[in-house]
Amino acid sequence: VSKDITGVAEFLERGVSEVIERPALEALLNSGERLRAKQGFDPTRPNLHLGHVVNLRKLRQMALWGHEVVVIIGDYTAQMGDPSERDESRPVLSRDEVARNAETYLEQFHRIVPRANVRIARQSEWYESFTLRQTIELASRFTAQQMLAREEFRNRMKNAAPIPIKDMLYPLLQAYDSVAIRSDVEFGGTDQKFNILLGRDLQDDVGQRPQQVYLVHLLPGLDGEKMSKTKPQTGIWLTDDPRTMFGKVMSVPDELMPVYFESATELALSEARRHVAALRDGSLHPRDAKHLLARQIVAELHDSAAAEDAASAFRKQFVEREVPEDLRSVRVESCRILDVLVEAGLARSRTEARRLIDQRGVRVDGVTVTDESFSLNSNGAAVVQVGSRKVARVVCPPSA
Amino acid sequence: VSKDITGVAEFLERGVSEVIERPALEALLNSGERLRAKQGFDPTRPNLHLGHVVNLRKLRQMALWGHEVVVIIGDYTAQMGDPSERDESRPVLSRDEVARNAETYLEQFHRIVPRANVRIARQSEWYESFTLRQTIELASRFTAQQMLAREEFRNRMKNAAPIPIKDMLYPLLQAYDSVAIRSDVEFGGTDQKFNILLGRDLQDDVGQRPQQVYLVHLLPGLDGEKMSKTKPQTGIWLTDDPRTMFGKVMSVPDELMPVYFESATELALSEARRHVAALRDGSLHPRDAKHLLARQIVAELHDSAAAEDAASAFRKQFVEREVPEDLRSVRVESCRILDVLVEAGLARSRTEARRLIDQRGVRVDGVTVTDESFSLNSNGAAVVQVGSRKVARVVCPPSA
Repeated sequence: VSKDITGVAEFLERGVSEVIERPALEALLNSGERLRAKQGFDPTRPNLHLGHVVNLRKLRQMALWGHEVVVIIGDYTAQMGDPSERDESRPVLSRDEVARNAETYLEQFHRIVPRANVRIARQSEWYESFTLRQTIELASRFTAQQMLAREEFRNRMKNAAPIPIKDMLYPLLQAYDSVAIRSDVEFGGTDQKFNILLGRDLQDDVGQRPQQVYLVHLLPGLDGEKMSKTKPQTGIWLTDDPRTMFGKVMSVPDELMPVYFESATELALSEARRHVAALRDGSLHPRDAKHLLARQIVAELHDSAAAEDAASAFRKQFVEREVPEDLRSVRVESCRILDVLVEAGLARSRTEARRLIDQRGVRVDGVTVTDESFSLNSNGAAVVQVGSRKVARVVCPPSA
Repeated sequence: VSKDITGVAEFLERGVSEVIERPALEALLNSGERLRAKQGFDPTRPNLHLGHVVNLRKLRQMALWGHEVVVIIGDYTAQMGDPSERDESRPVLSRDEVARNAETYLEQFHRIVPRANVRIARQSEWYESFTLRQTIELASRFTAQQMLAREEFRNRMKNAAPIPIKDMLYPLLQAYDSVAIRSDVEFGGTDQKFNILLGRDLQDDVGQRPQQVYLVHLLPGLDGEKMSKTKPQTGIWLTDDPRTMFGKVMSVPDELMPVYFESATELALSEARRHVAALRDGSLHPRDAKHLLARQIVAELHDSAAAEDAASAFRKQFVEREVPEDLRSVRVESCRILDVLVEAGLARSRTEARRLIDQRGVRVDGVTVTDESFSLNSNGAAVVQVGSRKVARVVCPPSA
């Protein structure tokens, strides 16, 4: 594999929240040994967002250096029915659906990570023939207390929400994946720390060299919170078309720009930090910074022509209508249009809001609202305009 | 199968602590349907005590009526190593040891339950080919909270003692045994209630008719506590020779005689109760009652000749030496002989105790003590005699 000591230093810092054993990982990356990096994929969630991209760029770097990247498709558990039907958050997938979702995932994955040095593995390769003996041996290596220390389980205990024993086995299977492929390095968001460390512990326990672990910051979405498929409008998805993606970046809250520049782009780190410094000292206007950012991200995830097109479309849509390009993001308490207009400061009262709707002066995502009982999609973000000048990106709460 | 309605009534009451659904079990037993009764056996514990016999007599009755009794040998988990070595209470058995222990168990089992209508099954028949999918499905049917509600787990949680996740799987496997053999009835001591009900719930969950459940009182040992292999001297074991067994029954605390008469013998219930009433109104001396009981139990578990022999040997040993036949049982705080003699009231002081030993006047289980640093086996019971008249059965505490 290629040696790239300067590259390794940036690799270990950019977007990184924590490296469990930095000197060891650094030594490994500089040793010339060809390493194996693990990337799990849950086929029930085939779509990638910009937060995942932070992670995938680390894998891309590994692959470019000549290491091996193993993508593990979690097909075994995804095809498993839940006889208790308690867990509606995990749909059961057919073999075809798993294949289709894996294709969707890999198409997006390979926009970031090249095909060379990537191997695709399936959990069923080792779990189809897993015996009860192996399962019990695995389950003997971890305690109920370790599992229940996880925040997710602690909360369920506290709220007396049932924790099927199965849910205590899934993290063990994910950990065993590291053993099955003899993983050397695993990356993940900070929310994956517990799972990734389990894999490391298990390898150590069975006498394998434990994988090095490396955690990246979670990239917040347009609402400032973790991107998630449950609120697609506040995340930036690889499936977003260039214009949508551009518009979404333009409505990222100002305070998130530094982390977006550093974690979510491939700008040279020095350049990214120059922009952040300029933002801070006022020499770069937030609107212009966001423009830069949006073009950069769309260019990286689509291409530069698409970025140019999206930028000019955006300019046309807003500048020519004399509305600010960097939309305010407003969180409101209700999704009902009358409440939204008042809360977002687009109307002074519900009476005025009603009048504006009657006059066909209110648009949501470009569509004129004609019914005062209209509601925004809950838990999403929408651009709400009044006339040609007043505009905001509004995020309204999930339905109760 | 034979109908025996009067028999069923006694069957459901004698020694019984709880019948989960009495009318249903009664109807089933009177229906003429041939039922299947489940009896699990842990090959790490091949020896039976008088407490188990209470249970086995219920199975014997079932077999005599013509129902099927299935003994399940827990060979699969018994042969499973614990890689974490956390659980030293569960030795790993080889295939040969399992076979040998099963033989030991069945030899004792069949002293109570006839061979006709008994089938032997092994857990490995269904667990050798058990898939991870089946395990996860099983583990999805129960929650961590259900398991942690067990007293044993609650205590470990409270004391921060580790609970390997494996330990939460074992009860599920035991429950699945009921499904595997399609059990109709399961008996057990009150301490098995949780496990037996899990099997019932699981059957219901997978669409089988849930087994009827029937709990018998635990028979206390010579120290008034649950009989257990960790304190063999306080339990009455099927492997005890007739004279030992007779002596042990003679030292059962007086207050346990009613439960022994009713649960631990096959005397007609009316006769057993007559003895108990006579004890209560004083017309039967406790010593004579215990004699009756000891002869009865030895006759049932060995034979009447052995009972006669044991009775006369006992008489000879004690009566001819003019010591009381119904030994006092004394619990002491220390196992050291000097302390034992003082605490049991056999010597007035440690000085006198020393002198008695020097004079070769102290015997433990018939053997003269010559060393004043001698200690009794911890957690056991021993007959301690001073001269020919002072005697007590002494139980000393487990070693710290």
